[in-house]
Amino acid sequence: MTDTLQKIKQLADADIAAPLGFHADGQHVGLKHKSKDLGWIYSDVPAAAAGVFTTNQVQAAPVKLDKATIKDGQLQAIIVNSGNANAVTGKIGYEHAAVMQQTAADSLNIDANLVAVASTGIIGQILPIDKVVHGIHQLHISGDSKAFAHAIMTTDTVEKSITIQSQIGNQTVTMSGVAKGSGMLHPNMATMLGFITTDVNISSELLQQALSEDVETSFNQITIDGDTSTNDTVLVMANGQANHQKIITASADYDHFKAMLHTVTTALAIALASDGEGATKLLAVTVAHAQSSSAARMIAKKVVGSSLVKTAMFGKDPNWGRIIAAIGASDVAVDPDIIDIALNNIPVMQSGAPITFDQESMVAALEQKNIAIDINLNNGEASGQAWGSDLTYEYVKINALYTT
Amino acid sequence: MTDTLQKIKQLADADIAAPLGFHADGQHVGLKHKSKDLGWIYSDVPAAAAGVFTTNQVQAAPVKLDKATIKDGQLQAIIVNSGNANAVTGKIGYEHAAVMQQTAADSLNIDANLVAVASTGIIGQILPIDKVVHGIHQLHISGDSKAFAHAIMTTDTVEKSITIQSQIGNQTVTMSGVAKGSGMLHPNMATMLGFITTDVNISSELLQQALSEDVETSFNQITIDGDTSTNDTVLVMANGQANHQKIITASADYDHFKAMLHTVTTALAIALASDGEGATKLLAVTVAHAQSSSAARMIAKKVVGSSLVKTAMFGKDPNWGRIIAAIGASDVAVDPDIIDIALNNIPVMQSGAPITFDQESMVAALEQKNIAIDINLNNGEASGQAWGSDLTYEYVKINALYTT
Repeated sequence: MTDTLQKIKQLADADIAAPLGFHADGQHVGLKHKSKDLGWIYSDVPAAAAGVFTTNQVQAAPVKLDKATIKDGQLQAIIVNSGNANAVTGKIGYEHAAVMQQTAADSLNIDANLVAVASTGIIGQILPIDKVVHGIHQLHISGDSKAFAHAIMTTDTVEKSITIQSQIGNQTVTMSGVAKGSGMLHPNMATMLGFITTDVNISSELLQQALSEDVETSFNQITIDGDTSTNDTVLVMANGQANHQKIITASADYDHFKAMLHTVTTALAIALASDGEGATKLLAVTVAHAQSSSAARMIAKKVVGSSLVKTAMFGKDPNWGRIIAAIGASDVAVDPDIIDIALNNIPVMQSGAPITFDQESMVAALEQKNIAIDINLNNGEASGQAWGSDLTYEYVKINALYTT
Repeated sequence: MTDTLQKIKQLADADIAAPLGFHADGQHVGLKHKSKDLGWIYSDVPAAAAGVFTTNQVQAAPVKLDKATIKDGQLQAIIVNSGNANAVTGKIGYEHAAVMQQTAADSLNIDANLVAVASTGIIGQILPIDKVVHGIHQLHISGDSKAFAHAIMTTDTVEKSITIQSQIGNQTVTMSGVAKGSGMLHPNMATMLGFITTDVNISSELLQQALSEDVETSFNQITIDGDTSTNDTVLVMANGQANHQKIITASADYDHFKAMLHTVTTALAIALASDGEGATKLLAVTVAHAQSSSAARMIAKKVVGSSLVKTAMFGKDPNWGRIIAAIGASDVAVDPDIIDIALNNIPVMQSGAPITFDQESMVAALEQKNIAIDINLNNGEASGQAWGSDLTYEYVKINALYTT
């Protein structure tokens, strides 16, 4: 894996339209007060497409639409609005999602079945469809592609995007990703939208398989507040414009593609956690020597989702008792008496008992923006990670004072 | 049930030692800075006893001790300290719990096997056993019984206690309960301690059965922050000093006893939720017309535990989209399109679609301290409730700035 990863180069300049044959735009069309709120991604040719969606039983109209649209494994465009989730909006909501899809298709002169729709913002308010339709007419194929990442933001404070390049079959291939979402993030991708474009040439079946597997260790391992959204969507478009042999079987090229995909999804997931609503810190929990990687991931996610752990980290308090309590409360069987815990490399618990640490070093360690919580179960060979943010006054403020 | 409940009278003055043959005391012995931190309950005779404990795999030393102690269904005393949880304290922690038990037994001149031990406070710090031993010698059998409820408090802002009276076999019977715990409260009784005394004459088997069933609809239906403690304990002592025929089978008397128990446990559970760390509001979620009461309770608890619902209620924001999203994220299958939701009796969602409501009435409704969230699944005959609190700046402050 190390060899593979060394061959993947991150570009200084991220752009969702960087892969060959992709275009994007983002505009302000009046769904939000001032900032950009509508954007699209367009490929010159139909692209192999894959998607994963929220597991919430309450699914927004665009999610239901996309699940049907993506069934044949092809997309040529994605139209996205922020400011309104078009969720729990009844029958009219589905009609609005279909109008968005058809209007974008007409503008781009492609079939509606090749257009995915995504919405993010407040739940339960009727989408102002006139503004959206009018707005779609303001989008350009060769527009401001970097504006797309801004157009999909809600309470995000920074855009999250990445572009990487690598080689497949001696051809340069490019992959870009953008994501949004900082509240309502949890287990099964709550209010996060992620869009990934690439010029890699791959079958839609393998693309879906790679994506479905990948999210288990990337997007599904971040949690901000334990709430799961109605709108979570990750879509990948691979338009095959790079001139290498098509990937149609599990091969070395497929493995390399998966490594590229994981580079993009993990970078976006960590960026999402780092920009959690009100966050002052990024918490990275690593569980080592577990009996299985899924067990390790479950424990890591339980710890990173604990309100008491999150507030302790905000308070720069090395209150590891809350960490071991969260481990014990997970659904994975553990033996507390053989567990070790370290905070930013300073051991605080060994074999289930407290150990003394230098207070001054600890204070300095917890001043960092990035906090590594390392848990050694001493009970196997597997490991897993999860990422989250601290719980702060600002989180409460954002979610108490603003209807999001 | 209505008839039964009408025969249960709550006394204006709550006292854990109100049932015949019970005594209690509470003192400050130096585990906390100033406030009372050690107390006991004592019965003149050995009492039938039942207990339920945390399901966290990391269990404090006193929890492990009590589980062994209570196996034969008898207790005569309970010794409790606050300020230190004696959890994750290694081998020495178990020794300390045993020393607490033996010292209390010696002071009371009873067998150590009749003494339960409970501790609450910070995790992972060695219990200052000398102070505890010295403190136990300061406790009196006929001490300040009302001080007991204070001696077990941590971040609680008010004591939680109740005394009720009723009749069994034409005899007056009394039952009292005290509880503590306002953070780290969740599913399976996280950092809550609850102690119930009664002079009812009942077998320990039926007492345990009644308690185990009851907590499913009372203490286990409150959540403050989703964290599950290492120390949760509820103990009931029934010393049989009321002069009625012993309850040894499932009978009308047993049903009446269960109604009394439920009155006490529910009152304490709601008091705990109402005093959640930093809480400004009590949230009571009722799920009606579900297919089973356990399904109803699961959904109610998911909603009351949602950080986004909790912050919305703090912000007096009728953001019911977060409520339906939480319902959909629960593990219970629901049909969102037939669900109705009301906030303090004002309908906000009907058949899965938004309905307009009077803004002024809603503002007034959400100004209340008590918020009723009523969810009608329109899909069965069962119902269930859960209670919690809002998520506030103060919660973050308490848990970020103080090591608890």
